[in-house]
Amino acid sequence: MNKATPKRQAAPRPSTLADRYAAIRQQSLDLAAPLSAEDCQVQSMADASPTKWHLAHITWFFETFLLERFEPAFRPFEPSFRVLFNSYYKGIGAQYPRPQRGLITRPTLADVKRFRADVDERMQALIAARPGDAEVEALVSLGLQHEQQHQELMLTDIKHAFSFNPAAPAYARRWPISRVQPEPMRWFAHAGGLVEIGHDPVLDGDFCFDNETPRHRAFVEPFEIASRPVTYGEYLAFMDDAGYARPELWLSMGWDWVQSGARTAPLYWTRDGDRWLNHTLQGTVEIDPHTPVCHLSYFEADAFARWAGARLPTELEWEHAARALRAPASGGNFADRGAFHPMPQTKTIGDEPVQMFGDVWEWTASAYLPYPRFRPLPGLVGEYNGKFMCNQFVLRGGSCATPRGHVRASYRNFFPPDAQWQFSGLRLARDL
Amino acid sequence: MNKATPKRQAAPRPSTLADRYAAIRQQSLDLAAPLSAEDCQVQSMADASPTKWHLAHITWFFETFLLERFEPAFRPFEPSFRVLFNSYYKGIGAQYPRPQRGLITRPTLADVKRFRADVDERMQALIAARPGDAEVEALVSLGLQHEQQHQELMLTDIKHAFSFNPAAPAYARRWPISRVQPEPMRWFAHAGGLVEIGHDPVLDGDFCFDNETPRHRAFVEPFEIASRPVTYGEYLAFMDDAGYARPELWLSMGWDWVQSGARTAPLYWTRDGDRWLNHTLQGTVEIDPHTPVCHLSYFEADAFARWAGARLPTELEWEHAARALRAPASGGNFADRGAFHPMPQTKTIGDEPVQMFGDVWEWTASAYLPYPRFRPLPGLVGEYNGKFMCNQFVLRGGSCATPRGHVRASYRNFFPPDAQWQFSGLRLARDL
Amino acid sequence: MNKATPKRQAAPRPSTLADRYAAIRQQSLDLAAPLSAEDCQVQSMADASPTKWHLAHITWFFETFLLERFEPAFRPFEPSFRVLFNSYYKGIGAQYPRPQRGLITRPTLADVKRFRADVDERMQALIAARPGDAEVEALVSLGLQHEQQHQELMLTDIKHAFSFNPAAPAYARRWPISRVQPEPMRWFAHAGGLVEIGHDPVLDGDFCFDNETPRHRAFVEPFEIASRPVTYGEYLAFMDDAGYARPELWLSMGWDWVQSGARTAPLYWTRDGDRWLNHTLQGTVEIDPHTPVCHLSYFEADAFARWAGARLPTELEWEHAARALRAPASGGNFADRGAFHPMPQTKTIGDEPVQMFGDVWEWTASAYLPYPRFRPLPGLVGEYNGKFMCNQFVLRGGSCATPRGHVRASYRNFFPPDAQWQFSGLRLARDL
Amino acid sequence: MNKATPKRQAAPRPSTLADRYAAIRQQSLDLAAPLSAEDCQVQSMADASPTKWHLAHITWFFETFLLERFEPAFRPFEPSFRVLFNSYYKGIGAQYPRPQRGLITRPTLADVKRFRADVDERMQALIAARPGDAEVEALVSLGLQHEQQHQELMLTDIKHAFSFNPAAPAYARRWPISRVQPEPMRWFAHAGGLVEIGHDPVLDGDFCFDNETPRHRAFVEPFEIASRPVTYGEYLAFMDDAGYARPELWLSMGWDWVQSGARTAPLYWTRDGDRWLNHTLQGTVEIDPHTPVCHLSYFEADAFARWAGARLPTELEWEHAARALRAPASGGNFADRGAFHPMPQTKTIGDEPVQMFGDVWEWTASAYLPYPRFRPLPGLVGEYNGKFMCNQFVLRGGSCATPRGHVRASYRNFFPPDAQWQFSGLRLARDL
Repeated sequence: MNKATPKRQAAPRPSTLADRYAAIRQQSLDLAAPLSAEDCQVQSMADASPTKWHLAHITWFFETFLLERFEPAFRPFEPSFRVLFNSYYKGIGAQYPRPQRGLITRPTLADVKRFRADVDERMQALIAARPGDAEVEALVSLGLQHEQQHQELMLTDIKHAFSFNPAAPAYARRWPISRVQPEPMRWFAHAGGLVEIGHDPVLDGDFCFDNETPRHRAFVEPFEIASRPVTYGEYLAFMDDAGYARPELWLSMGWDWVQSGARTAPLYWTRDGDRWLNHTLQGTVEIDPHTPVCHLSYFEADAFARWAGARLPTELEWEHAARALRAPASGGNFADRGAFHPMPQTKTIGDEPVQMFGDVWEWTASAYLPYPRFRPLPGLVGEYNGKFMCNQFVLRGGSCATPRGHVRASYRNFFPPDAQWQFSGLRLARDL
Repeated sequence: MNKATPKRQAAPRPSTLADRYAAIRQQSLDLAAPLSAEDCQVQSMADASPTKWHLAHITWFFETFLLERFEPAFRPFEPSFRVLFNSYYKGIGAQYPRPQRGLITRPTLADVKRFRADVDERMQALIAARPGDAEVEALVSLGLQHEQQHQELMLTDIKHAFSFNPAAPAYARRWPISRVQPEPMRWFAHAGGLVEIGHDPVLDGDFCFDNETPRHRAFVEPFEIASRPVTYGEYLAFMDDAGYARPELWLSMGWDWVQSGARTAPLYWTRDGDRWLNHTLQGTVEIDPHTPVCHLSYFEADAFARWAGARLPTELEWEHAARALRAPASGGNFADRGAFHPMPQTKTIGDEPVQMFGDVWEWTASAYLPYPRFRPLPGLVGEYNGKFMCNQFVLRGGSCATPRGHVRASYRNFFPPDAQWQFSGLRLARDL
Repeated sequence: MNKATPKRQAAPRPSTLADRYAAIRQQSLDLAAPLSAEDCQVQSMADASPTKWHLAHITWFFETFLLERFEPAFRPFEPSFRVLFNSYYKGIGAQYPRPQRGLITRPTLADVKRFRADVDERMQALIAARPGDAEVEALVSLGLQHEQQHQELMLTDIKHAFSFNPAAPAYARRWPISRVQPEPMRWFAHAGGLVEIGHDPVLDGDFCFDNETPRHRAFVEPFEIASRPVTYGEYLAFMDDAGYARPELWLSMGWDWVQSGARTAPLYWTRDGDRWLNHTLQGTVEIDPHTPVCHLSYFEADAFARWAGARLPTELEWEHAARALRAPASGGNFADRGAFHPMPQTKTIGDEPVQMFGDVWEWTASAYLPYPRFRPLPGLVGEYNGKFMCNQFVLRGGSCATPRGHVRASYRNFFPPDAQWQFSGLRLARDL
Repeated sequence: MNKATPKRQAAPRPSTLADRYAAIRQQSLDLAAPLSAEDCQVQSMADASPTKWHLAHITWFFETFLLERFEPAFRPFEPSFRVLFNSYYKGIGAQYPRPQRGLITRPTLADVKRFRADVDERMQALIAARPGDAEVEALVSLGLQHEQQHQELMLTDIKHAFSFNPAAPAYARRWPISRVQPEPMRWFAHAGGLVEIGHDPVLDGDFCFDNETPRHRAFVEPFEIASRPVTYGEYLAFMDDAGYARPELWLSMGWDWVQSGARTAPLYWTRDGDRWLNHTLQGTVEIDPHTPVCHLSYFEADAFARWAGARLPTELEWEHAARALRAPASGGNFADRGAFHPMPQTKTIGDEPVQMFGDVWEWTASAYLPYPRFRPLPGLVGEYNGKFMCNQFVLRGGSCATPRGHVRASYRNFFPPDAQWQFSGLRLARDL
């Protein structure tokens, strides 16, 4: 077992498509470097996937959507991979059953790395052969963004898998946290009105997912938003105030979730005498009250907000507030930092909120639904986003497990309200 | 077993609170009249309740929220009923487990009728003793609206229970259907823009539920809406076009629902040689292609719309279109008609849509969420609506099982996307 | 609701087949007399059946296996009953799904009584028309024994259903118990050796079920058996000695059953401060330590025996010991007594065990398997017993819910090891 | 991944305890040799365990029951292993949850091999330090027999895991099968009478498990037993005769099992056009009709026997017949052969049955229960067998995955009636 700490990611963004391809593809391997073949094999629940599967699936994406279509005399690396590593694209054909991904011991991790190397070589040839081909470039960009999404999932999924191990293995050893006490929470007001929402190439860069479009108008009432995310310390106050024992604070479905699971704390917390321990990618540590709380379900975020006399922002409010930032991502703690855990506010709060990007995905009060006049991408990649618009809530802003540069103000992440294994926290909002 | 057909409901709306109380309370008993004690006992799934339980619960509402608070020297009719017939009000205290409601054989149906008579007598005394008391009047009105909601549920739940009986018992024998072929579907355009949404006392009358408030502004893109609901005949065309076998037509969660249930038709359809039979409250009948299709889940309504090259309207669009009608409820087929089944369009479509009220609840594309600045009712009735705002979709317009006069343009009904046992259908919409 | 106490059953056994038929059939109606139509409708778990279903099924037995075969110009009372009231006879055809029996509200209870009256009239005509027909007589006898088995199940099933009612309704009011302290447990030795086991017409009377045959030889080691069943008081001592918290006392499967159900006491016990209450057919009463304990699973009976330094007897040992009694059933408390609950030992223990018949079914250590050379009954009734010989344990001796005269030394009852809702207790045995 | 075929096991049995220890321990590593670290990680169902877990658990057995007790200054190799690799011994303390064994990625396979090497060194020291110590010798023997049982489970469990891989990986490549047509089935009669059953040191060698004791008398009726196991070809005839569609052939619980799983063939069979394919440890092969059929549940074996007009033997009959063999194990196909699949009868049937040992475990009609006067082993190893005596059936004779020399005539294996993943088949018996 290689116990090496993963390499620092990031550095300046490469300028050519070929370079970007190489860099982002390498980051996936870097993230898998501290893991043994056994680590890369396991699947701890149906919602999570083995690291090995992630590494293969994001390669399958390029082989299936790019090489199969554009490569002259295309031949698959291994025909059975078309089914094995298809996540959910019905248009492509059958999928291997999701809950059994952890049972696929062959191909081995070494085999999957050979698959990656082969596809990378062919992809670089394709990119070189079609300079300026807009369709190829768009699909490569989509594939790289897709790969970055799976880089985050590799981290959240191995964290979940490690939580079953009583020996509490650490994925990384780069604990950068100084125990800084955050400033008291403050509020920033917005007048609202008729606003524009959704991806804007000028503001957000060329790339976006289809679910961020089209940019459209929406009416927003006056509101105010908190200066920073809610911390572990604040969440502990909620728990100490019997937060998990008071049904009036919870949605009906949330209360059933609390009761049926006999829940008294968020995921990854364990009681140790009179203190709380926290399972992290750096091993087991004591809860730090100054850090943004994460691994909350929507139910928990919603109940906390109600207890605090506030509410979750809608995704429109969140995006509107994020657009108003002068230095959006500054200070944000992303995966490239190597902590893989939210960090206390270090930047002084001046006249705008901090940590809207990075650290924790922020649950919003908005159901994940199509924007007016939304159209999925044409072709087989059209299954990417639209078909999931049901019984999920939108999260915004990225987390400590998100690759730097991956998110933007219009970015819409989404999970069911009981999901906890993402780095999900919250920021409060209030009516004005 | 009393096989009498239920009495015709309705008639002109009584003008005093006391009269309205008496009339609506009587309608509940009338609806139970065709049922035996055994019929009133059973619960065919956790989502449904026994008729007897409905009759007791809507009485419990008055005893708990009115008599307990306002009656001098209040004493409960029977103390154990406080728990037995509490549906979900945590503020009141414990509830008997919902899935076991069908196991409560005592009190008997006769006992429950005695409970009703006792509470009715005391309620009339209370109403008489407090003329013009706004708080009492508001709570009585809420209780009566609540009773009407349960009148609809009594019908949907006994229909579900009867569906398990191979002998196909009929609840009613008043089949009023002439086989009228509906006009071809037409479209009515709306310019949209910044509109007002939510309950307006001038337009909608004094009463509304808290979830219809506050009235607020929203921006709506130009759209068009269909002249009438989708019919069984149109839905059959979808089925004949392999609708249940084409994943690209379905939401991901909807497709899983189709697959896991091996579904090939809506609830209550059974194949009989080369024709389809339909379980109705009038017994088993052949599918009538001209009637609005009902007992669709959101998944089915959404898939049909996609197949038809259209979409579901949002609830904002629906309400906006309903506000524009000159004769909103005319021709609507409500429970008072005694058919308890949707009926073919009989009114000629002139220059506005028909059947927006009555016949079938129309699924909208909107998740059931709070309006901006929504506040639940104060006090213990505050649990009525707000705590269910999660993983449900809004339906609009009422159905053939809704008491006439109960719905309005701002009325928001809501069910999870897999619910089928309500009289739920759809009307198409399109972008303009 | 008729709250009358059920009539005393029993009295001298009628001598003719017609009289026996009439008497046993009447006993079923007598047992249902204290129950309302609602009571007769409900099914509290898949293993239990509604009273109404029992009343119909035991009638179906005569119509299907007798009238259909022997009646000239047979026509069914109602064709749909053939499926509705078929319990598990695949040779007859389809069965209505067992877990949904409680949903069949029509036929009503009154309809089922009409069905009974009709079949009874035709059966009496058949019996009169075929005097001395051995085949008819054998099938009628089987049907009457079958009916008596269901009389016991009617009691155990309504007891289970009533346990869900917080108001704790009482089925009967004939509590005959004087609190008599039983004598200390004593032991009676048997030398064993090669013994004969199984039904013997001379010893046991003409009738038996096929599973009691053929009489055969078996070798039994020397053993001793307890003078009386284990009491509630003795079981409480096991509980007070942490019986439910010590895995070494339990079978592996039993321990899993304890853990997964968080069990700390047998079925129907509830803690009330510092005393234990017991749900009985006479309502809720305090546990009486002097009464034979019942509603134990095999797991509980086995664990108690291990704790007590003893074991359960095999069914061979039990039958061998029962054969040696001079006054087998004297003092036994059967259903005709009207207590429907085990009663303390009242007969002085002389030189043989007491209460081997009546009071509680006694779990044995024997799996329910065919005797050597066992052959099921020929024809469609061959499904009666043989096909259940898997994963069940044998119980012997009858209970307080068994009709007097129904059991005998060779009688084999059987239930899965986790079943608790029968009146099942235990008697200890030891190696010698 | 090492794709080497596993080494041939077996060879003459070593004579000293130290040599036997070394040889049997080495066999476990040899069996794991063809597997990658990923292969050794996975757990395909709760009943199966990862190869890595098996390798660790059988080492834990020696550390816990031998070293901890007898080693001076005992210190565990790694304290957390005491819980992680405890299978089910409550007397030892907590166990890691069985269904999650596949999630333990650390220790790695390499770590577990270090654990094995360390314990082996200490065990050899212990054996050397205590020559002739009867207690040590008995526990070491038990540990080695235990290890051999897990060697068989390693094979059955990896076979099950590989069955989920569409690429159908082969564990071994040593297919030794010549397609020999077996002789027609013949019958061998036994007079029965009062016989002795159970382990006899003179006949069976010194070692046995506690569940084979005490030797005792039992009465057996005259019977006859088949000359050889039932073959795939014979089982196909049962399938072709609608065996899976005729409820009269099945136990009630077996029929439910067929229906709920929509079963039409045994485990590991897949239809390929007009032929049947078989998943084996040698990869996917066509069904060979001449080979003993295996991977049958008890339900299937029982149904086949009924269809064939015969029955399963009791374990008494089986043992009695096996005792009568002059050359019990000759020709038996055990794990040392390297086929890991049953093989056609090659030895001519003379005047006694063949293949009673090896090839397939033979289901008997006997529930797994204690012999009269059975006592579990004293001490913590007492949990080995006795606590599983519930809802399981006895199998006899060993299989193609059993190490040669591990079984004997008195050996009792046991599995629940729905278990299929062992190499379980059947031999017919009949009454005489």
